[in-house]
Amino acid sequence: MTTYNFNPGPSPLPQEVLDHAQANMFNFEQSGMGIMELSHRSPQYEGVHNQTIKQIRKLLDVPEDYSVLLLQGGASLQFAMSAMNFLPADQKAAFVMTGSWSEKAKKEASFYGQTYELATSKANQYKNIPEVDLSLVSPDTAYIHYTSNNTIFGTQWTRFPNSDQPAIVDMSSDILSKEVDWNTVDMAYAGAQKNAGMSGVTIVIVRNSLLDHASENVSPTLSYKQHDKANSLYNTPPTSAIYMTGLVCDWIEKNGGLKGMKQRAEEKAQLIYDEIDGSEGFYTGHADTASRSNMNVTFNLPSEELEKSFLAKAKAEGFVGLNGHRSVGGCRASIYNAVPKEHVEKLISFMKEFRSVNK
Amino acid sequence: MTTYNFNPGPSPLPQEVLDHAQANMFNFEQSGMGIMELSHRSPQYEGVHNQTIKQIRKLLDVPEDYSVLLLQGGASLQFAMSAMNFLPADQKAAFVMTGSWSEKAKKEASFYGQTYELATSKANQYKNIPEVDLSLVSPDTAYIHYTSNNTIFGTQWTRFPNSDQPAIVDMSSDILSKEVDWNTVDMAYAGAQKNAGMSGVTIVIVRNSLLDHASENVSPTLSYKQHDKANSLYNTPPTSAIYMTGLVCDWIEKNGGLKGMKQRAEEKAQLIYDEIDGSEGFYTGHADTASRSNMNVTFNLPSEELEKSFLAKAKAEGFVGLNGHRSVGGCRASIYNAVPKEHVEKLISFMKEFRSVNK
Repeated sequence: MTTYNFNPGPSPLPQEVLDHAQANMFNFEQSGMGIMELSHRSPQYEGVHNQTIKQIRKLLDVPEDYSVLLLQGGASLQFAMSAMNFLPADQKAAFVMTGSWSEKAKKEASFYGQTYELATSKANQYKNIPEVDLSLVSPDTAYIHYTSNNTIFGTQWTRFPNSDQPAIVDMSSDILSKEVDWNTVDMAYAGAQKNAGMSGVTIVIVRNSLLDHASENVSPTLSYKQHDKANSLYNTPPTSAIYMTGLVCDWIEKNGGLKGMKQRAEEKAQLIYDEIDGSEGFYTGHADTASRSNMNVTFNLPSEELEKSFLAKAKAEGFVGLNGHRSVGGCRASIYNAVPKEHVEKLISFMKEFRSVNK
Repeated sequence: MTTYNFNPGPSPLPQEVLDHAQANMFNFEQSGMGIMELSHRSPQYEGVHNQTIKQIRKLLDVPEDYSVLLLQGGASLQFAMSAMNFLPADQKAAFVMTGSWSEKAKKEASFYGQTYELATSKANQYKNIPEVDLSLVSPDTAYIHYTSNNTIFGTQWTRFPNSDQPAIVDMSSDILSKEVDWNTVDMAYAGAQKNAGMSGVTIVIVRNSLLDHASENVSPTLSYKQHDKANSLYNTPPTSAIYMTGLVCDWIEKNGGLKGMKQRAEEKAQLIYDEIDGSEGFYTGHADTASRSNMNVTFNLPSEELEKSFLAKAKAEGFVGLNGHRSVGGCRASIYNAVPKEHVEKLISFMKEFRSVNK
């Protein structure tokens, strides 16, 4: 049976990437060694490492005055590290709250300094990206934190406010799916397991002028400055995960770069939103129309009973990962870069059929 | 050309493990999904996760009142986390200094609390494991930190002192190569990339009574308590790296468990030490005889020129990773669990031949 993988993360990788990895990662460049058996100080591995960083720079058009780091610990560790490095005791970090991940980011940062909510859509069940009134930014704000795409609620930012304070953005669930306007982003970070590879590596892109202000009272493994100085080779990096991220970048480049990814994402998302909007109320989207995500489409059916039946039937037909997050229920189709359009079309057929039988 | 991989870490994995991974990790249990495409909340991945923890417990005979965690960031992040979690402001951490890794561990901890050196062999160029006089342990000591095997200098502990204070041991370079006496160890941690898999996952084994005393002022991603509560699934774990660790554990079990690994390690090390000791001074071991490591054999030749020639010729004949650490020079053969005895025999033949030509 064919599997249609709509997992929210870790999520599918392009089949070409998997095929290439299977054929090559266990005998890297015919060296007789797998990628995971190479010393991280060897020229072979350093080639992989530097090429991956170069590809990230190229695809995302990262300006020269930004550093690209490859770290561990997931985006969640970045919640802590960003505060440890960039939140002095006499300043505050502002958080724009768009869901559970914003809440977790703020909670983690609050262990290391003062935080406040600049805007939130919690009262609206995080159905929308809130308006940000920059006049409310307190003058002692060290940075403003955003979550660019909200996997659980299915909302996504289209552009970030252009503020005087540095903007730090968790892009875990939409990095590499569209271009980034670096005029509005001073630091971006993302766990790789959605659009950029497999779990175990975290991409951090940070403006050097922000790095210059990083705290000196952070130990080496938690210091951006230290990792930057060592080109992310301060200690052994997750070499296989970085290798996979490099392969994914190559695949993105071959498929039209970020313009291509954006177009694919919009087309796939539109197909599902069209089905939702045309279903005469059978399917209802969770997110407000203007805030809809191109990465995670969240929706409900007329009753919990029908949702259960929908998910059970979908599972039996080979669809994986369509259940909503355990914290909110409902249904969710995660359609990251590697999800083929054909799988989305299969899902639409399934949705139509289920609707016609159960309406 | 056959490759004889003596890399100090990342280092070789058993060929059976690599073959199994190549055949299975990209279509896990015929699910149509690679291990890296599975949700970490799926029953399939949870099976891998829990089985890996179970195998670590079984192989290392971990007592029931210890937790086994699978974290990220390498052993280096544990240098920081152990202090953040277990070093209160009014106490000190004692370090037994046996090389560069002890120095790094102490440096990292010193960002989060007070530290002191309980014993050191630095004056002897870290050629030996120092005697520890437990009467010198100050009463306000939160824990004593050891490095069980010293990759750079080629020394190894055989047993740890039995102190009243908790012992925290960095076992990165000899975990799973012999049994552990848990009466003398309260917490052990190890990056996987030497004996336990590929880089990107760190094993932490910690006594629950120590966990109970962990600081509450540590943010979730850096809190052992939080990771323990969530069974190392607080945030997305490095699923592929954990899968590989599970495969390595299975291979160890099939090959005699830790008794088998210890015997293999002793036999391989003895072969090289015999060649060194029988070389009439051509090869000289760096480590004092009583402190010699079964994992990393460090040695010098009569001159730097001969060392260069030795390393160049070795490289040409397919030997990889025999150069000493960039900080100390000389030669080093790292012979972790997965290095086949036949590769060590090849190395001995090469060493004998090189000696006969150059003595």
